[in-house]
Amino acid sequence: MEGKEEDVRLGANKFSERQPIGTSAQTDKDYKEPPPAPLFEPGELQSWSFYRAGIAEFVATFLFLYITVLTVMGVSQSKTKCTTVGVQGIAWAFGGMIFALVYCTAGISGGHINPAVTFGLFLARKLSLTRAVFYIIMQCLGAICGAGVVKGLQGDTRYELLGGGANSVNHGYTKGDGLGAEIIGTFVLVYTVFSATDAKRNARDSHVPILAPLPIGFAVFLVHLATIPITGTGINPARSLGAAIMYNRDHAWDDQWIFWVGPFIGAALAAVYHQLIIRAIPFKARA
Amino acid sequence: MEGKEEDVRLGANKFSERQPIGTSAQTDKDYKEPPPAPLFEPGELQSWSFYRAGIAEFVATFLFLYITVLTVMGVSQSKTKCTTVGVQGIAWAFGGMIFALVYCTAGISGGHINPAVTFGLFLARKLSLTRAVFYIIMQCLGAICGAGVVKGLQGDTRYELLGGGANSVNHGYTKGDGLGAEIIGTFVLVYTVFSATDAKRNARDSHVPILAPLPIGFAVFLVHLATIPITGTGINPARSLGAAIMYNRDHAWDDQWIFWVGPFIGAALAAVYHQLIIRAIPFKARA
Amino acid sequence: MEGKEEDVRLGANKFSERQPIGTSAQTDKDYKEPPPAPLFEPGELQSWSFYRAGIAEFVATFLFLYITVLTVMGVSQSKTKCTTVGVQGIAWAFGGMIFALVYCTAGISGGHINPAVTFGLFLARKLSLTRAVFYIIMQCLGAICGAGVVKGLQGDTRYELLGGGANSVNHGYTKGDGLGAEIIGTFVLVYTVFSATDAKRNARDSHVPILAPLPIGFAVFLVHLATIPITGTGINPARSLGAAIMYNRDHAWDDQWIFWVGPFIGAALAAVYHQLIIRAIPFKARA
Amino acid sequence: MEGKEEDVRLGANKFSERQPIGTSAQTDKDYKEPPPAPLFEPGELQSWSFYRAGIAEFVATFLFLYITVLTVMGVSQSKTKCTTVGVQGIAWAFGGMIFALVYCTAGISGGHINPAVTFGLFLARKLSLTRAVFYIIMQCLGAICGAGVVKGLQGDTRYELLGGGANSVNHGYTKGDGLGAEIIGTFVLVYTVFSATDAKRNARDSHVPILAPLPIGFAVFLVHLATIPITGTGINPARSLGAAIMYNRDHAWDDQWIFWVGPFIGAALAAVYHQLIIRAIPFKARA
Repeated sequence: MEGKEEDVRLGANKFSERQPIGTSAQTDKDYKEPPPAPLFEPGELQSWSFYRAGIAEFVATFLFLYITVLTVMGVSQSKTKCTTVGVQGIAWAFGGMIFALVYCTAGISGGHINPAVTFGLFLARKLSLTRAVFYIIMQCLGAICGAGVVKGLQGDTRYELLGGGANSVNHGYTKGDGLGAEIIGTFVLVYTVFSATDAKRNARDSHVPILAPLPIGFAVFLVHLATIPITGTGINPARSLGAAIMYNRDHAWDDQWIFWVGPFIGAALAAVYHQLIIRAIPFKARA
Repeated sequence: MEGKEEDVRLGANKFSERQPIGTSAQTDKDYKEPPPAPLFEPGELQSWSFYRAGIAEFVATFLFLYITVLTVMGVSQSKTKCTTVGVQGIAWAFGGMIFALVYCTAGISGGHINPAVTFGLFLARKLSLTRAVFYIIMQCLGAICGAGVVKGLQGDTRYELLGGGANSVNHGYTKGDGLGAEIIGTFVLVYTVFSATDAKRNARDSHVPILAPLPIGFAVFLVHLATIPITGTGINPARSLGAAIMYNRDHAWDDQWIFWVGPFIGAALAAVYHQLIIRAIPFKARA
Repeated sequence: MEGKEEDVRLGANKFSERQPIGTSAQTDKDYKEPPPAPLFEPGELQSWSFYRAGIAEFVATFLFLYITVLTVMGVSQSKTKCTTVGVQGIAWAFGGMIFALVYCTAGISGGHINPAVTFGLFLARKLSLTRAVFYIIMQCLGAICGAGVVKGLQGDTRYELLGGGANSVNHGYTKGDGLGAEIIGTFVLVYTVFSATDAKRNARDSHVPILAPLPIGFAVFLVHLATIPITGTGINPARSLGAAIMYNRDHAWDDQWIFWVGPFIGAALAAVYHQLIIRAIPFKARA
Repeated sequence: MEGKEEDVRLGANKFSERQPIGTSAQTDKDYKEPPPAPLFEPGELQSWSFYRAGIAEFVATFLFLYITVLTVMGVSQSKTKCTTVGVQGIAWAFGGMIFALVYCTAGISGGHINPAVTFGLFLARKLSLTRAVFYIIMQCLGAICGAGVVKGLQGDTRYELLGGGANSVNHGYTKGDGLGAEIIGTFVLVYTVFSATDAKRNARDSHVPILAPLPIGFAVFLVHLATIPITGTGINPARSLGAAIMYNRDHAWDDQWIFWVGPFIGAALAAVYHQLIIRAIPFKARA
């Protein structure tokens, strides 16, 4: 107890911030970095929990697309937005679903629900390549099915008329603007994910893990508030792919690369920032 | 302590996700499935806590209908929605009340406030048939009284003019669309409930139970964001029944079956998904 | 640990709900009801913490009125509500401030910020009469000053033109409707307060206290969503008094009694419901 | 355990509030005030964690300005606010970002993201002068870059046309009104920060630290709800400076002093209130 108190006061190392806001400081003291996940772990493929995790990612991404695209449809089909939940309601649908689904699936699959998150955590070697690829495939399949059910509910004509929730760069912005918005937006999300999962290490001292799904959901909500006018907000390649496949018009496909390249660059930058600057892993001996 | 740390790292079994987001992984290790609740437990009927739980369900469902139907009235009676809390405000009223009421009654009755939730938990044998039937009756009575008080406040004419908060399938959607929306919507809610209560088993290691009422409330909020344009969103047979009895017009009664069959199917699917896929209870020996 | 696990499974007594949602069941087992607070405790008046608590109530109610009445002004002064935070924003201001202020002052004064809450807790003998009277006076003074500063910022003319955030029964509703809405609204709030504070007793086993300020804030938010169209929503006599004194027009004073009688009746009903039904204190021997 | 229970019941000292809402009472008993931070701590400048904290403040303030100013742009550029996230959405962007960023950076730098917060904590001697100055510089640089990226995305013409998210006192209000609004608004924020960090001392008994980033974020959200119509809401000198530098018009510069003097006075008042009244540090011997 005494020792722990001191950890908290000392912070990450001797000259840390004295009064961290809200959560206790992280200590490197008793913490050993877990070994990086191997690229390929043969045993995984024989475990039920591996497939269960994939199914959980599929179901979560399915529900994510279903609720969010349906909310977008509801706002689009009304002439005066005042009689709908509005654009802010769309942002809540995206962020709120991520909050609820991360909460529900974190203990089963890690609760990625987003290929960019899987990619970022893979770069930090938090999961094997096998698992990363499996997750991304299941996420994309789930997203396609989720958007498909919305198309079934709305009927083909209305679905296509309303844009199908597909992402594209809006008038008044260049492809570069859209790419930049996707990069920074995904950085915000994946940076939050890294902050939430990293702090988990000292679960006893730090209170970070308890709230974790909430700031992750809020990150998605906030990025939607800011970038819906620019790209409709992707920051999730599975979401963009699912909506594009169901919508299937040229102008949605033309920009599709932006919603894969942008999020993957953003996730990579967040991984680099977290591992190099925040964790300083390559310089550990000096830390 | 050492042992616990290892549990967390290993996850649900040996080849689990290495870096779960936000909440610690669930372990099957030290956990013994509680025996299923008996269908009929005679002793229950002689305990005060059984009746207290029923009263708590009654009061909670009463307050739920009172606040939510009153919010719907306030939005409906104003010509320009900008001078009201809007459709998004309606979604907050439903979701927020479930959050607050689950928080308040979870320790007394389990905080169901919804026959579909009671049905789903009964299918998973988490409560006896006696208790499930008692809860559903009390929920329906509470809902009728809650809607009744709103009718009293608004006066019969205005209440009926404004639709009374009753659920029905909106123009442009088939009965099948409505049924599908209710099924998936209730699945989202009951799946969240199962995720929240299941994780409770290892309350010491997992941080899931602390937030529990919040994602459950958010699930209700999110389903409302998505399906208010389709059915007004039921996903709670007591809520649909209470509003229909007070409104009492043919077109509300015509669709009433959808708001019982849909939620019960959705809850059953969530129970099956959780028990078979996530918990893998029938295959436990192999797990 | 074994014993605790069993407590959770057994719930409030032997035949409790088997799978409570979200939070662990309450147990009467090791818990001894604290003795009721004396009506008058002479020593209190000589302790610094007594006066500090009063100052904290003053400052909290001051900030509560300042932020909320200013938000109401901002919405009222704009012709099209779409360019403001809207009525929903007003509801967030009231509920959000209660959340933040309960969080900040709970450890100092208990975080009442509302004479109805103080009255309800006094009826349950959770604080002395001396303290209750002192709190109510400080809350009213804080509310008057908070509304006064808003009046200073807005100027007398504009403040009075915009209604000053004062409560009154709106057109289309009778005094009885307004009184009823205040009674049930305050019941929702004080019932949540009792649920949040009661569960505190077994802080180790129950996770209720951690979230506590959030459902209390949400209760205020939700009642505003529902009853702003009826009375503007009081459920807090200090808030109604402060706004009325600064606004000082006849029609605000005519209804003032509703915003004292209603909340006090609602708080009393919540205290009775909690102590008699939920806690069953008079029947403890039989429980 | 016995001893702790008693602490909770006794509260801050003998005659405390008997039933604090939501969170356990604070005790002075076993708590020793940490020594005030020295004005200048030479060792700090040689530690990696000092520079890492500065980088974290830079990145957080960068992301804060990017998301919030972009949200403001999106609302400004649309003629009917109903097709945007609205003014309430702007308030959510500011408050939500503070919530997410405090959550992410609290363990690294303390999560200030605001020179007024740094100044307030410095006055309470929670960090050294060296660190305070370093933080404020990094925050201002981050803010300038964040606003700059938004300007790049929007293009110079559109950015300037839409006001660039810069703060100024609106028509109908005097400079004094604006200054007053900034002072009280910052008081609300910094008072919440002090409440959240102070309670951290008894992290084991008090549940305050777990939620901490949420009420801090809500404080920012609430002040925006109230004072956007008056000044656009600063309460963060780095945010006001960054937007002003990128916008660079006379009327933004004319009021710039208000957004430095106001927040610093508000932060100082909050520090005085907390240290003198709530903590009673100068009178400790008498307490």
